[in-house]
Amino acid sequence: MMLTSEQLMVQAPATAGYDALLKHGLETVNQLMHTAVDSDVTVLRDASRHIIEAGGKRIRPRLMILSYLATDGSPAALNQVSAPAAAIELVHTASVVHDDINDHGVVRRGRPSVNALWGRTFALLTGDFLFTKVYELMAPYRDLNVPLADATVALVEGETLQAQAVKENNFNRETYYQIIGRKTAALFGAAAKIGAMMANAPQNQVDMLYQFGYNIGLAFQIVDDVLDLVGDEKQLGKTSGIDVAQGRGFATAYATETPETVDEADPMVSIKRRVLQGDALEEARRQSRALVEAAVRQLDILPDSPYKQGLIDTAHMVIDREF
Amino acid sequence: MMLTSEQLMVQAPATAGYDALLKHGLETVNQLMHTAVDSDVTVLRDASRHIIEAGGKRIRPRLMILSYLATDGSPAALNQVSAPAAAIELVHTASVVHDDINDHGVVRRGRPSVNALWGRTFALLTGDFLFTKVYELMAPYRDLNVPLADATVALVEGETLQAQAVKENNFNRETYYQIIGRKTAALFGAAAKIGAMMANAPQNQVDMLYQFGYNIGLAFQIVDDVLDLVGDEKQLGKTSGIDVAQGRGFATAYATETPETVDEADPMVSIKRRVLQGDALEEARRQSRALVEAAVRQLDILPDSPYKQGLIDTAHMVIDREF
Repeated sequence: MMLTSEQLMVQAPATAGYDALLKHGLETVNQLMHTAVDSDVTVLRDASRHIIEAGGKRIRPRLMILSYLATDGSPAALNQVSAPAAAIELVHTASVVHDDINDHGVVRRGRPSVNALWGRTFALLTGDFLFTKVYELMAPYRDLNVPLADATVALVEGETLQAQAVKENNFNRETYYQIIGRKTAALFGAAAKIGAMMANAPQNQVDMLYQFGYNIGLAFQIVDDVLDLVGDEKQLGKTSGIDVAQGRGFATAYATETPETVDEADPMVSIKRRVLQGDALEEARRQSRALVEAAVRQLDILPDSPYKQGLIDTAHMVIDREF
Repeated sequence: MMLTSEQLMVQAPATAGYDALLKHGLETVNQLMHTAVDSDVTVLRDASRHIIEAGGKRIRPRLMILSYLATDGSPAALNQVSAPAAAIELVHTASVVHDDINDHGVVRRGRPSVNALWGRTFALLTGDFLFTKVYELMAPYRDLNVPLADATVALVEGETLQAQAVKENNFNRETYYQIIGRKTAALFGAAAKIGAMMANAPQNQVDMLYQFGYNIGLAFQIVDDVLDLVGDEKQLGKTSGIDVAQGRGFATAYATETPETVDEADPMVSIKRRVLQGDALEEARRQSRALVEAAVRQLDILPDSPYKQGLIDTAHMVIDREF
């Protein structure tokens, strides 16, 4: 099934202000994802909509839309960003569905995971289905496929590096940054970059926005990892404590480089204690803030606009989740 | 990583005859797959090459190359088909890796499956990696992505329909043909269609070649299913008997519609007996032959050429695997 141009064209309100425009853009992305995963194979449709409509922060589409607008993309033509923005959110969604298989995650976005409700076989196929829908949505966009394909490759490589480091018991700060660079930051970078490409922004802006997205992607993942440890499941909307239980994440990378934890029989207890004592937590806060500040400074080359301010606000949103 | 034009351009021998040209084309596809899955994440590279280099029949790239040549595509420019042909083989390869997870297949192409050697987590990620490499290889080919994306969606839908029919215990001949149409025939159809598209063939030839590929894809799957039941593992190069053990495949569809088997405690025994008695086997032989004959008749609209003969030979190859 290819989407018709009518399905892609939800008319943007021509005089919309910043908030209304962003809201409209994100709603269009949600509608498009809903439509894109339609199938007479009901389990694929239902499982896809279950995870899509559970929400999620939509931070990648938000970055793409704001980058487009902040680099002088026409607000009246904002709907052209909908398909790539839906596609990038579906890459993330597919990876989440497959992660929950490998990690035995049973709660996601405040709902039972696809894995928990439909079982492993259908969860694997639903993730594959979502990947194929990315490909289908992006088929008409020649140039934009290169950065999205690269980021999708990086995402799978990052997940694999993580599983490998855990298995080989060499999870440390160096591997940690390699992992989160690929599994999270590359897709954030691609989101911001593709928005600028769609606005036909000059190359220095396109490159800068990739770096901007990449840096806040790193910050996002550090915060996410710490929340995994100190947040509760209800607040997080997903199974918590998975990272440390599996021997990975920021706290693991931090704690395994300090001697105190070496002899502990239960790493969860010792790592959690160190984090709650404050040093890993403080380190995570410091690093994620530094990354966001660096990212925001990079935006200096853009003219001021409500959209640029939207990018700055988004960068702060990433670290202002309480922990 | 994007492939450079040098990597894509292995010079075709300008004066090559039919056999040499096809052999050259398939070797280029193999080289390109080898290169495309390179990664510093060694487990992804090694697991991908393990399954790719185990061989396989390369029937989808063969169909694409022959369709291209049979619709007057320039032999000197055959290398332009290499990337789409590698991509379509990688779609199939990714699905095989994921199938072996869901089916607990431990032997594939005469080797231990990726699942058996690297475990479930890495097998899932290797399948995802191969899907992302399809996307990366195809990024520059705008129009060709639509049929390949559609066939990839169909493939995942077909696998899902199959798992669903088994689970809901309504595997019959009608569901069987829906399943194999999507999980196998659609990709065969796309292979032949894309070859013709790359040759800029007229629309009636493009459409006909889709039908040609689709029909021999149906025949291929029927034969494959019967071989799963009556072949041995060494001959097949993969775990045999999976289909009936899981309550699916041609023999299951055939046998579950005849009253004899209803009361049997062990469906494998009763289905296998019926097949070996000859009726399901004969029915499979009859149907697969009829499909191939219909497919070959469709080629009448093409001018005679060694390449058209190659397509006819390929169609016969599909059913001339002994059973």
